[in-house]
Amino acid sequence: MADAINTLNIDSPFEMYRGGALARAQVVYETLGELNAKADNGVLVFTGLSPSSHVASTVYDPRAGWWEDMVGPEKPIDTHRFFVICVNSIGSCFGSTGPASDDPATGKPYETSFPVLSIEDIAAAGNAVVESMGIDSLAAVVGPSMGGMTALAFALAYPDKVRNFASISSAARALPFAIAIRSLQREVIRSDPAWRDGNYGEDEPVLGMRLARKLGMLSYRSAHELQQRFGRERVSEERRKGDDFGTEFEVESYLEAHAEKFVGTFDANCYLYLSRAMDFFDAADHGGSLEAAFARISLQRALVVGVRSDILFPLAQQQELAELLKPRAKSLDFHALDSIQGHDSFLVDMDRFRPVVAEFFNGLD
Amino acid sequence: MADAINTLNIDSPFEMYRGGALARAQVVYETLGELNAKADNGVLVFTGLSPSSHVASTVYDPRAGWWEDMVGPEKPIDTHRFFVICVNSIGSCFGSTGPASDDPATGKPYETSFPVLSIEDIAAAGNAVVESMGIDSLAAVVGPSMGGMTALAFALAYPDKVRNFASISSAARALPFAIAIRSLQREVIRSDPAWRDGNYGEDEPVLGMRLARKLGMLSYRSAHELQQRFGRERVSEERRKGDDFGTEFEVESYLEAHAEKFVGTFDANCYLYLSRAMDFFDAADHGGSLEAAFARISLQRALVVGVRSDILFPLAQQQELAELLKPRAKSLDFHALDSIQGHDSFLVDMDRFRPVVAEFFNGLD
Repeated sequence: MADAINTLNIDSPFEMYRGGALARAQVVYETLGELNAKADNGVLVFTGLSPSSHVASTVYDPRAGWWEDMVGPEKPIDTHRFFVICVNSIGSCFGSTGPASDDPATGKPYETSFPVLSIEDIAAAGNAVVESMGIDSLAAVVGPSMGGMTALAFALAYPDKVRNFASISSAARALPFAIAIRSLQREVIRSDPAWRDGNYGEDEPVLGMRLARKLGMLSYRSAHELQQRFGRERVSEERRKGDDFGTEFEVESYLEAHAEKFVGTFDANCYLYLSRAMDFFDAADHGGSLEAAFARISLQRALVVGVRSDILFPLAQQQELAELLKPRAKSLDFHALDSIQGHDSFLVDMDRFRPVVAEFFNGLD
Repeated sequence: MADAINTLNIDSPFEMYRGGALARAQVVYETLGELNAKADNGVLVFTGLSPSSHVASTVYDPRAGWWEDMVGPEKPIDTHRFFVICVNSIGSCFGSTGPASDDPATGKPYETSFPVLSIEDIAAAGNAVVESMGIDSLAAVVGPSMGGMTALAFALAYPDKVRNFASISSAARALPFAIAIRSLQREVIRSDPAWRDGNYGEDEPVLGMRLARKLGMLSYRSAHELQQRFGRERVSEERRKGDDFGTEFEVESYLEAHAEKFVGTFDANCYLYLSRAMDFFDAADHGGSLEAAFARISLQRALVVGVRSDILFPLAQQQELAELLKPRAKSLDFHALDSIQGHDSFLVDMDRFRPVVAEFFNGLD
């Protein structure tokens, strides 16, 4: 096995964590590097809400991946050494089965008839991928943001398969400020008349997705960064849009550009399901308390990285994760980074993130 | 003069700061206490975006006011000593002329034909009130949030009339994170088909106002407070609303309750104009730089109060204000409060706010 883009047909039925089941579900994943003879150098990468399985460029897909700086030959997660597997989340829309996929029972898209999605389902689909390759011990499971929640759900469900664990700007459970932001994002999508109770077909609820993305951007970045980048700068006359309430400040133009870029790249129903899955996630569900849940895990090394300016997965949640993991790992690396780009820092402040991830992976046995 | 609710007819035309003019504009204000013989014990209070001139209960309106705990006999702003004047902002919808008022030229509501509104216009209308009462020296000008910006605009425009100045959770200028939040609030209102380009008549854009209020609440409170109050609590079965994406967590129910309460209490166009006026505000417009602008002011005492958990008017902006005021006042009180209720703390954490405001007003000559 080497670099590849694969589709796995998951055994039917795929029972969902909160009820319901999927028939003939598929999961798309990409691999980079070589699985060794002992099949024990696998690194399973879960993604945030919106990326695909394309974590980094390969000969099969030379486009830059969502974590291009982090995964590849001689990169922090070194594909000369590790066999990296990145999974498109169940419930997403980049090949894996989700609300936009056809329901085999009807031949039509699931839309809102898709069963309630949980982070645990994404982890289970990842496990199906790992099993299909005959891997029963992973060098590491890693994920940023929602992917960190999924990596944790995986470690809790299959503790014997995880030797090392890395959480990047993630959390052991969703807290109310993040839930509230996501709830409002979902509400603006569902309030768009074009959403049509999820039955929008080809005609996406563009307005709702634009507004949800703008709200997302406000939670993904930091006030400090916006201040440094835009201050009170006005847009030039030719870029001014709309009436007196239109685009006047550079920061408004920035949000507008991100909204434009996002529209058409992600299915609205998939967004709703994945977003809600994050709200539901609470590691304490797997033991009655967080401590009891984490008692299932036994690790060689654990890594927790967070960012001081992150308002969506705040530093206190990184500290909580580190404290929970400390008794469960022979060693724990905890980094509170000073990046100013907020939650998105793991995608953009690579000068700070590369060294801490590299140090962790270099130190694995 | 004593407790009263008054309407002042402002001299026509009322020239607006960014162009245009209002004919036969009116401003509503309430007074509490007695103006002394020297007419020098006036305290001019400007409001945040949404309150009316009803700052505290009087015999004329016994309902609790928006700053009931702060203004009244024996209260921190003691109406046995001071003659308090609270002005409903020009551009608002509680009696003062705004987009919902009839344009005398057409006999129909201004709606979006209202001229661009500035914080400076609100200050100028306040000055018209003060002039009408023959007051040429105010004991103090004070305001929270947008009202603090207005108080500052007043002090910059009429420096000889202001002996003391108090800014509560406000700022010398709008910064991009706050601009972005307000921009998105305006966009959700304007995106509501019921807004009808501002011509909604009696049929308010309820959906847009609800969503804008929810987004507002997320910026008015703090993540820490939401965590303490709601954690991951679920709503009871009978209070569950909607489908799988409906109200599930207590924090969602909290936002819903605030949205419900807000709808019907504030005109949508007025909201848009006042919100945009805050974005435009930059004290540096009155001198080329903040320092040059503040050089106009000469105060006895100045008070700056802010809250560490405020994300809309963050502590750094309170510190900036304090530094700007320090050389302009014989003494400066600066308080960074540990309230966890974010920007709204000045309305709810009275145990922290009362003493600092009382100390300031007690100390005035």
